Amino acid sequence: MELSKVIVDTIWVLITAKMVFFMNLGFAAVESGFARTKNCVNILSKNFIVFAVSSLGFLLLGWGLMFGDGNPFVGLRGLFFLSGMDNSPATHEAYKGVYSAISWAGVPLFAKFFFQLVFAGTAATIVSGAVAERIKYVSFIVFSFFMTMFIYPIVGHWVWGGGWLAKKGMFDFAGSTVVHSVGGWAALAGVLLLGPRFGKYDNGKINPIPGHNLSLATIGTFVLWFGWFGFNPGSTMTADPIAISHVAVTTNTAAAAAIMSSTILSWFLLGKPDLGMTLNGCLAGLVAITASCAFVTIGASIIIGLAAGVLVVLAVIGFDKLKIDDPVGALSVHLVNGIFGTLAVGLFAVDKITGTTTGNGLFYGGGITLLLAQLSGVAGVAGFAFFSSLITWAIIKAVMGLRVTLQEEIEGLDIGEHGNSAYPEFLSKKPAFSFLGVKDNGGKR
Amino acid sequence: MELSKVIVDTIWVLITAKMVFFMNLGFAAVESGFARTKNCVNILSKNFIVFAVSSLGFLLLGWGLMFGDGNPFVGLRGLFFLSGMDNSPATHEAYKGVYSAISWAGVPLFAKFFFQLVFAGTAATIVSGAVAERIKYVSFIVFSFFMTMFIYPIVGHWVWGGGWLAKKGMFDFAGSTVVHSVGGWAALAGVLLLGPRFGKYDNGKINPIPGHNLSLATIGTFVLWFGWFGFNPGSTMTADPIAISHVAVTTNTAAAAAIMSSTILSWFLLGKPDLGMTLNGCLAGLVAITASCAFVTIGASIIIGLAAGVLVVLAVIGFDKLKIDDPVGALSVHLVNGIFGTLAVGLFAVDKITGTTTGNGLFYGGGITLLLAQLSGVAGVAGFAFFSSLITWAIIKAVMGLRVTLQEEIEGLDIGEHGNSAYPEFLSKKPAFSFLGVKDNGGKR
Amino acid sequence: MELSKVIVDTIWVLITAKMVFFMNLGFAAVESGFARTKNCVNILSKNFIVFAVSSLGFLLLGWGLMFGDGNPFVGLRGLFFLSGMDNSPATHEAYKGVYSAISWAGVPLFAKFFFQLVFAGTAATIVSGAVAERIKYVSFIVFSFFMTMFIYPIVGHWVWGGGWLAKKGMFDFAGSTVVHSVGGWAALAGVLLLGPRFGKYDNGKINPIPGHNLSLATIGTFVLWFGWFGFNPGSTMTADPIAISHVAVTTNTAAAAAIMSSTILSWFLLGKPDLGMTLNGCLAGLVAITASCAFVTIGASIIIGLAAGVLVVLAVIGFDKLKIDDPVGALSVHLVNGIFGTLAVGLFAVDKITGTTTGNGLFYGGGITLLLAQLSGVAGVAGFAFFSSLITWAIIKAVMGLRVTLQEEIEGLDIGEHGNSAYPEFLSKKPAFSFLGVKDNGGKR
Repeated sequence: MELSKVIVDTIWVLITAKMVFFMNLGFAAVESGFARTKNCVNILSKNFIVFAVSSLGFLLLGWGLMFGDGNPFVGLRGLFFLSGMDNSPATHEAYKGVYSAISWAGVPLFAKFFFQLVFAGTAATIVSGAVAERIKYVSFIVFSFFMTMFIYPIVGHWVWGGGWLAKKGMFDFAGSTVVHSVGGWAALAGVLLLGPRFGKYDNGKINPIPGHNLSLATIGTFVLWFGWFGFNPGSTMTADPIAISHVAVTTNTAAAAAIMSSTILSWFLLGKPDLGMTLNGCLAGLVAITASCAFVTIGASIIIGLAAGVLVVLAVIGFDKLKIDDPVGALSVHLVNGIFGTLAVGLFAVDKITGTTTGNGLFYGGGITLLLAQLSGVAGVAGFAFFSSLITWAIIKAVMGLRVTLQEEIEGLDIGEHGNSAYPEFLSKKPAFSFLGVKDNGGKR
Repeated sequence: MELSKVIVDTIWVLITAKMVFFMNLGFAAVESGFARTKNCVNILSKNFIVFAVSSLGFLLLGWGLMFGDGNPFVGLRGLFFLSGMDNSPATHEAYKGVYSAISWAGVPLFAKFFFQLVFAGTAATIVSGAVAERIKYVSFIVFSFFMTMFIYPIVGHWVWGGGWLAKKGMFDFAGSTVVHSVGGWAALAGVLLLGPRFGKYDNGKINPIPGHNLSLATIGTFVLWFGWFGFNPGSTMTADPIAISHVAVTTNTAAAAAIMSSTILSWFLLGKPDLGMTLNGCLAGLVAITASCAFVTIGASIIIGLAAGVLVVLAVIGFDKLKIDDPVGALSVHLVNGIFGTLAVGLFAVDKITGTTTGNGLFYGGGITLLLAQLSGVAGVAGFAFFSSLITWAIIKAVMGLRVTLQEEIEGLDIGEHGNSAYPEFLSKKPAFSFLGVKDNGGKR
Repeated sequence: MELSKVIVDTIWVLITAKMVFFMNLGFAAVESGFARTKNCVNILSKNFIVFAVSSLGFLLLGWGLMFGDGNPFVGLRGLFFLSGMDNSPATHEAYKGVYSAISWAGVPLFAKFFFQLVFAGTAATIVSGAVAERIKYVSFIVFSFFMTMFIYPIVGHWVWGGGWLAKKGMFDFAGSTVVHSVGGWAALAGVLLLGPRFGKYDNGKINPIPGHNLSLATIGTFVLWFGWFGFNPGSTMTADPIAISHVAVTTNTAAAAAIMSSTILSWFLLGKPDLGMTLNGCLAGLVAITASCAFVTIGASIIIGLAAGVLVVLAVIGFDKLKIDDPVGALSVHLVNGIFGTLAVGLFAVDKITGTTTGNGLFYGGGITLLLAQLSGVAGVAGFAFFSSLITWAIIKAVMGLRVTLQEEIEGLDIGEHGNSAYPEFLSKKPAFSFLGVKDNGGKR
């Protein structure tokens, strides 16, 4: 009987982990679809190699820093290559080992590792979209390696590894903070050091740079939506029928509501229903429900989704006004809604709705206790993730440079970085403004 | 022990439901691949938003009308927002609640809802392909909302909600009628009110309008074939080893046989093996086996598949002769083979082959009893689904119009409806005939 | 209790089988992405129909030859249409039937069949890439039918059907030999009879022929990587928590390591990191770990992956030097790494690491016993698969021809074979060299 619980839990954890792995395809398709033909090979390359880099970085050290027994800030035991003692799938009192913080999950160590790895990989791939169309390939690879070895696992230790935020009573069910906002902060730091793409904010105007392939972007978003049915329900790490069914529905309903609100708002603001806003609305709803999907009602998931769809549209417009150039809207989706989703736990949580003792959120009579814990999580992670990323980016910039040359950027990174072209037979127009841009300001940025 | 049955059944229901959700990607890719570049953003938008709309419509009311206790025609209890009493996963005598018709499934209420939702979404997305390249975005959204709130759930109540067709002994295992022919009838009603695309039947000729991206269409069909391994085996709603293995094989074999017969027939009729016919042949075989996959032998599944592949080729040609313009062949696939597949139960069923007491079909010595029950299902659903859809479309037409302007249709819906372009950098030829068409008849339809 | 083991094993086997089925999409996308626009419809058609053909061929006879009781070389009982006696899911002493070699798997017969079918289909689809851009559609279809009816199942019988290689103590956990190298040998035989594509080795030079759509190729590779998480962990055919978790991790780690080594080596050799090499590196790592994924440590999986990434780059370059024209690198991926992966078991195996008694490999103190058994597997399969394929191809060539006309090849197979075009609206350049080629040698090959 106990054996069969381990079996079904392992099946559940592995299958949902595979679905999360599949999200790498989604991120690759969304990012390349939203970018230009001339950078497509570069974007595909970044999105493909990032999971390989994450796999090695998280195996080498990330897992140990995140789940190793240690202090409230970092894991210190069994650091390298999963080498610590561990008798999983034993749980609770029966557990003997150095990865106690995740000993509640009754599956083999490698199943835990694989599941956590695909989450680390997601955090790393989020960065890619924001820094697209100007970052050097090698610099991105190096950052991803450091991120999955240090930055992501340390925050992970705080929240999921029994660290100080866990002790403070902060809840982040599937990673609005741990995965999405960490990815977002790392991306923001990179964007600030990189600066906007050439031509994006020339002459005091915001020049739209349309994506080259909306079929690809739409396919990618469907894949991410699908993958989220692994991401959120899988985060139970046990096949609890009530919880996984609940999470599947709240996840979907938030996405649906966000799709409607982002579509309607963009229709109202821009005059037409913008497909890019619809797709990013979906992702925003999914990010926003990620922290709270197991803690809120279906009704609350609709409200969270509606708000996420509004937030993402406003954020996309807002970042552009601030001249923070994010080609795919990654900051608006993952950072803004990662923060909102984390706070939403403090607003909408219903104690024990699928079993977890969270206490009630503000709107359900629980006062501000939970909201404050969530706020400290947002603030603490913001500080660490942003500044550690900034330092990492700065070191990389000093050592090998961050950005391709202007010449290479104008010609496209595919030629310069890869000597290749994504669609060598299709005739394409050059995006007009970049050449105008060259004339207008004599090639200066 | 009982607990572990609930766990494995929930895993099975949720994973197969996710696979059916993933079919939305397949429908989006098939439809956009089979249509023209200039309408691609519109098609992607329709196919993306339709599942959001379905999610809200089916939650708001559809589920209640379909599974709520009521009369033989419609559910009347627990109508809105899953609000009725329900102690799932309790089953049989232990069940207490207002959704008795689905109380046989031993999984939590939200798992049942999520599984049924993805089927409702499939019915809605089928419509999209047939009305493509001329329907207004907003009109399609409104129709989808009504369809998942009223039309689909009412038919669903008749067959799967314990209604009059269930009582008559009609069998539709995974929805050849409930999902596919309902989608097909709704599509046919829309097509008749919309009329053909500009230029399609000019000058008494049938002008082929080739799809812009067969890579996309092929990917989409693979995804649908994959998703069908959730659609059909998942419809057990319980992980019965014999039944789910049987259904996986009959489903695949019917698809394989239909691919061969549609390819060979199109090779014979058209002189070359047409990829579009091969892809639609696959879908035709899948639709045709959907009603009977758990009730027939492997041998019968081959015959059903072979017939489906022939039917779809003839239907595509036939609808064109009737000047019924269906850009992707949705009527030939879902309506014609939905009907055929439903009748195939009456011809090929083998009593209790995977446990269900269906009685034998005509070819297995069961006489015409079962076939008559299937026929009444086909006829009853035809009448209701077609006319309720026709009325819904007519009301939408009166209130907000159904079709974009001729100018917008010629320029492409992407500009008119969305102010956008799917591939803004690729140079493309304008489909020649539409400009000739404009000259020929001075822009009149 | 026993019942619930059958249930979870059946869920596991069916879900992983579906993931392997999904790899057909991956192969279609990789092959069409790496080939030219003018042959895209043909490639999509081949990759789509091949699974239909495999489904029928393996059902008709393949399964029986592979798993039917018989002699060490071929199955002889229950040959056609799964018609032999079989009381699965009974196992061990309780098993009564004619498919004893697979009676250890405690799932229904149809689950076993479906799982084995998707593997047979993989072997067949591997061939497609190597013979692309010049083979006649009908000839490919006929070869695939024979391959899944005879060639693949006979080798399968030797290794997985209790035949002479199984008795010799050769191990091939998930098919580096049975699936990948068999596909590779069949492909090599076809390539040798077909000769290189027109223009590929003109004027004593190796003319690169870039793929038309690297987005598609990248998506395809992600899908294959995802599918491999069904291919390898599913090959347990039982949901053994320790084994399936172990296999998921070794599979991923080998892929990650191979991505890094192939990328770095191509960067070094070619001056830029080539996306095609990165993608093929991933597949090479996956093929190489397939035989040993359940028998080696995580550390060994990294070494195997690193070596696979190096091998694939050198093999791609080497085959070109030998004027063996393989448009997608299928030989370098599946044949070279299928052989290497099979031998890797003999080098790296750790006895009973997930339960199977393999003995230790050479590097773990086991001497050369296991390596010799692996070598005899490689050699025996090489001889049979290559020559039986060569004979089959030769007969097809004699009866109906293998290669399209030069005229058709230059214009593209899409027009000649299918009367169709994959992207009829996009303007494309004609690949320059083929027209130069025509001038240079007057149209002769």
